[in-house]
Amino acid sequence: MRAVAKQKATPGLELIEKPEPVPGPEEVLIQVKACSICGTDVHIYQWDEWSQRRIKPPLVLGHEVAGKVISVGSHVQGISKGDYVSAESHIPCGRCVYCHSGRAHICQNYKILGIDRDGTFAEYLVIPQSVVWKNDLSILPKFASIQEPLGNSVHVVMEANVAGKSVAVFGTGITGLFAIAVAHAVGAVEIFAIDQHEFKLNLAKKLGATRAINFRKEDSVKVLRDATGGLGVDVVLEMSGAQSAIDSGLKAVRKGGMFIAFGLPSKSVTVDLAEDIIFKGLQIKGITGRKIFETWDQMNYLLRTGKLDLSPIVTHEVGLNEFEHAMDLMINHPNETIKVVMYP
Amino acid sequence: MRAVAKQKATPGLELIEKPEPVPGPEEVLIQVKACSICGTDVHIYQWDEWSQRRIKPPLVLGHEVAGKVISVGSHVQGISKGDYVSAESHIPCGRCVYCHSGRAHICQNYKILGIDRDGTFAEYLVIPQSVVWKNDLSILPKFASIQEPLGNSVHVVMEANVAGKSVAVFGTGITGLFAIAVAHAVGAVEIFAIDQHEFKLNLAKKLGATRAINFRKEDSVKVLRDATGGLGVDVVLEMSGAQSAIDSGLKAVRKGGMFIAFGLPSKSVTVDLAEDIIFKGLQIKGITGRKIFETWDQMNYLLRTGKLDLSPIVTHEVGLNEFEHAMDLMINHPNETIKVVMYP
Amino acid sequence: MRAVAKQKATPGLELIEKPEPVPGPEEVLIQVKACSICGTDVHIYQWDEWSQRRIKPPLVLGHEVAGKVISVGSHVQGISKGDYVSAESHIPCGRCVYCHSGRAHICQNYKILGIDRDGTFAEYLVIPQSVVWKNDLSILPKFASIQEPLGNSVHVVMEANVAGKSVAVFGTGITGLFAIAVAHAVGAVEIFAIDQHEFKLNLAKKLGATRAINFRKEDSVKVLRDATGGLGVDVVLEMSGAQSAIDSGLKAVRKGGMFIAFGLPSKSVTVDLAEDIIFKGLQIKGITGRKIFETWDQMNYLLRTGKLDLSPIVTHEVGLNEFEHAMDLMINHPNETIKVVMYP
Amino acid sequence: MRAVAKQKATPGLELIEKPEPVPGPEEVLIQVKACSICGTDVHIYQWDEWSQRRIKPPLVLGHEVAGKVISVGSHVQGISKGDYVSAESHIPCGRCVYCHSGRAHICQNYKILGIDRDGTFAEYLVIPQSVVWKNDLSILPKFASIQEPLGNSVHVVMEANVAGKSVAVFGTGITGLFAIAVAHAVGAVEIFAIDQHEFKLNLAKKLGATRAINFRKEDSVKVLRDATGGLGVDVVLEMSGAQSAIDSGLKAVRKGGMFIAFGLPSKSVTVDLAEDIIFKGLQIKGITGRKIFETWDQMNYLLRTGKLDLSPIVTHEVGLNEFEHAMDLMINHPNETIKVVMYP
Repeated sequence: MRAVAKQKATPGLELIEKPEPVPGPEEVLIQVKACSICGTDVHIYQWDEWSQRRIKPPLVLGHEVAGKVISVGSHVQGISKGDYVSAESHIPCGRCVYCHSGRAHICQNYKILGIDRDGTFAEYLVIPQSVVWKNDLSILPKFASIQEPLGNSVHVVMEANVAGKSVAVFGTGITGLFAIAVAHAVGAVEIFAIDQHEFKLNLAKKLGATRAINFRKEDSVKVLRDATGGLGVDVVLEMSGAQSAIDSGLKAVRKGGMFIAFGLPSKSVTVDLAEDIIFKGLQIKGITGRKIFETWDQMNYLLRTGKLDLSPIVTHEVGLNEFEHAMDLMINHPNETIKVVMYP
Repeated sequence: MRAVAKQKATPGLELIEKPEPVPGPEEVLIQVKACSICGTDVHIYQWDEWSQRRIKPPLVLGHEVAGKVISVGSHVQGISKGDYVSAESHIPCGRCVYCHSGRAHICQNYKILGIDRDGTFAEYLVIPQSVVWKNDLSILPKFASIQEPLGNSVHVVMEANVAGKSVAVFGTGITGLFAIAVAHAVGAVEIFAIDQHEFKLNLAKKLGATRAINFRKEDSVKVLRDATGGLGVDVVLEMSGAQSAIDSGLKAVRKGGMFIAFGLPSKSVTVDLAEDIIFKGLQIKGITGRKIFETWDQMNYLLRTGKLDLSPIVTHEVGLNEFEHAMDLMINHPNETIKVVMYP
Repeated sequence: MRAVAKQKATPGLELIEKPEPVPGPEEVLIQVKACSICGTDVHIYQWDEWSQRRIKPPLVLGHEVAGKVISVGSHVQGISKGDYVSAESHIPCGRCVYCHSGRAHICQNYKILGIDRDGTFAEYLVIPQSVVWKNDLSILPKFASIQEPLGNSVHVVMEANVAGKSVAVFGTGITGLFAIAVAHAVGAVEIFAIDQHEFKLNLAKKLGATRAINFRKEDSVKVLRDATGGLGVDVVLEMSGAQSAIDSGLKAVRKGGMFIAFGLPSKSVTVDLAEDIIFKGLQIKGITGRKIFETWDQMNYLLRTGKLDLSPIVTHEVGLNEFEHAMDLMINHPNETIKVVMYP
Repeated sequence: MRAVAKQKATPGLELIEKPEPVPGPEEVLIQVKACSICGTDVHIYQWDEWSQRRIKPPLVLGHEVAGKVISVGSHVQGISKGDYVSAESHIPCGRCVYCHSGRAHICQNYKILGIDRDGTFAEYLVIPQSVVWKNDLSILPKFASIQEPLGNSVHVVMEANVAGKSVAVFGTGITGLFAIAVAHAVGAVEIFAIDQHEFKLNLAKKLGATRAINFRKEDSVKVLRDATGGLGVDVVLEMSGAQSAIDSGLKAVRKGGMFIAFGLPSKSVTVDLAEDIIFKGLQIKGITGRKIFETWDQMNYLLRTGKLDLSPIVTHEVGLNEFEHAMDLMINHPNETIKVVMYP
């Protein structure tokens, strides 16, 4: 089969031929219908410091996917040939205290598709039955594939409890945009999108943002306070990981409010704990991954009922053999390239 | 009447004679039975930078009190001459969005007794009816007086949800010690006290700590991880405001855990948001003041049923005229002086 | 001034002339711009058993209102002549344990406008400052007046946590219809309206119901189960008080779901506690009144941002002197008469 | 091996010889060290109506156990020969929406040990790896065995949020007594035990009840209201399933309080929904089973730290061959027989 893989410890990726993988007794073989590219894949392509430490070539990349079950291992239960599925990318150990108490998304020993084992950028894929999610047939493969990152944002928004509230979303990368769409679908009243790229801010508006704030042109804290009678917003979703956004978010959230930390800063950050958190009686939640499978269930419900329209998110669709073009879009046209879906 | 006051903008305090205050229509006149000294009073005595900015002499100090109602203003309802009372020290405006929604402890416009208006270090005291709390008769004045700081710790512990859990308390100053006693009373299973002062650590054990960790002698993070099967504790109560304690607390709390920020750092702090908060799925709550009067009600219940024994906390009892001695204890013997109660 | 009052202990109401009321020191005089009729007013008009026990004539009726402040008592703070206001109809005592802990909606000693003291069906009205709510100027008097019953439904929906969920609303009287509109505004995905009156079911659809179920024509439990893959709905809002609806709601809600009890049955009800509540791991909340003023704040936000459109709810607008016509509509055309607003 | 089994569809049980069971690929063979008797086993012994419908002989009885792993199936992971284990008695399907979202205790398709497959009253036992719980070595087999019913009560108490509160426990059968012990361990301030049997009420006091109320001698609602300043208790744990206890519990719980329904009534119950639930703003939770394995983890923590002492609960210890004597104790001396542990 064809696959896009990191063959050696240098920058770049290669389109290779390799044998179809064979599922073990608790695994499932999937024919990939669509796979999509995450920022992490770009880091591995570019072979940054983190990738050099973490990735052991050879490795087929990719952790976002939709496909069809071709065969199942001897001990697989409840999954059949022909099922239309996607994959939770984090493979939990199933036995740690977190897995044992319904919190597998913070499993102590999880492995990641396309990082710790061969991933989704291929014609065929083998995954453990424990991470198989059956898709509703009404969801197109391109949307089914991007459920993995969408799930992060669904998790963020559901933990933030946005119903009937004002919400500021800092950062309109893919998870920020998803968060805006989800917050809009589940009852946020006003949604403020904060970023510096007009293309993304316009997309934010299409997805449900009631106001887009370009922080290069406006003081976001001032705009948010003015728009909320001086109080600040009920909820901040920090999706960028930037120190300046964290600062602004902590200043712009009201007393007794909620601040979700999702965007990953590249180094330690500085916060005014006394003024911005303690005296405010602020609540902060760090969010990672997707609740397995509670988040997938919520997401599926929003997608199959049409409450959530992801069309504006998938900006490019290419063939798997066009992966170099896809990487070029992600790297050199980042502000117009939201999500690239590849078809094998 | 006699009162201990800051008469001019210089270090020190004076014992003065001044007329008994007269209650306005919505105020209550109280004969002080006991008043107790807070760290803030010491700062004002020493006339530190913060005090110089915040305090406008002349001012009677003090915000902790127990006493008897002598007379009530014409529009006071539900409070009578002879009632045995204490005072919530934060006087909420009663009209902002927070006061209007049962969250007066984060009122936008609150005033503080002994800071914004004459306080409790006196024979008589006038306070608004809105901050009067009727004490159970079984509670001694020295304990009724220290309900104000105790309430901070009750608020902290009740928000942390410690029942059946392991709890690490960083900092064994007065609110840390109170937090240990309260956590013990409301069902924490293991309570780890972390500090560097042996006197306080011993007190922590008397109040319910199952283990005292002197961070000068032991690596607190290692001890906490070893004691919890490598997972870390369920809950951290950060009562010190020290950067090093914040660091250790964030490292020692388990995934999916709870971190309460109460101790006030004197400047901005640095945190590893990605590793310690986001990937952990950590929940952080900033806590300030006492819920008015939900916290008082909880505290009263713990005290009148004898679930909470505060005897080890009141280390010194003196006359109001011995205030200089009290300040000396607080300033020069801080590690053996937990709470000083004064009797007018 | 003119007022509509129960003058003696017999059926009916009278349009009377009486002196303008004079506000006490903590009260506010309001010129009524709009007042609206509740089912309770109809009961008092008809002089049913409950009314005979509860109402002491003479009494001006009505507890829903929007108006303008004409003057304020000597101790009123934060409310000024000219303010555009509505009234929380339940006047809490301000001193019981519930009032003291931000839960005045379950005050032990509350009084009700138009039941325990003169109400809103008049040109002028006096209310305590404690129940005055300042309206946003953008909200029309007819909509500002019906915030009192709307608040019940906002309270119901916010406690039910409907975001991203399937919701069944049993009963499409005024609070059921409001609940549908609010659930739609704050992120319910599917909303099923269950009743027997086609006019109301059509209204339910206009307000956001995704499906209307006429229980005279369809088996509501079967429809709800079929529509949810056999699981049942996430949330049931029981707004009717009918035994049959309670039965159906408990059967139609899924395991681990939420059942809100709001509709008042006229007598005790029977439930299969083991099958429908315990084995299901069901959560039930009884909801009454509005959180003071948290619910008002949420409601105001939904109204002033246009998230909530109440136009279909106000089916009739008449003059105060046409009160007999209004009562006739409520009594003899109940299925086409949702809310009647009167203008003095 | 020896086992106690229902061999045919008539009252009684037999001590039989049968071959040791052989574990399948995902199963575990356990040598039973202790097994304990539940009221359900007594019902099956007596062959009541429910048993006749539900039980298909031949069947080895019993679902409470502690033992040692003898061998494991070929696909078992993380469990080894020699492990000291107990069993979650409800075997979840692992694939329904509830299992998939961390709520396996309300699995749609669960099977029960000793009811749907051979149980624990035997020398050897085979169970699926999915329900194996590894015990702390410090817990004696007799206590490890009774974790199954204890877990019900831990689940009840943790959902009730009793820390710092007043709690009334209706019914002092085994789960009521456990609930008292757990509530005492996790921070309830006052615990009222209500029953009619003095032996059990005395046991309740030993386990932590602050007051025992014999409802044959005292009006429990009056006592509870008098003891709480007229308000009623914060929390009711209904562990009896009796209509009269449900009535009293609903009357005795305060406004805004919490009512846990755990005891199973044999038929439908009647409630005053308006007065006791809606106007009170009451919260009710139906609780069944144990959270898998969150509850087990909480329970293990309480047991291994010594926070929970179960000694008074195990009133009788006998050999497996004395099962007839054990049944006689349970049936003819129910008020002095709390828990009987059998040793094979």
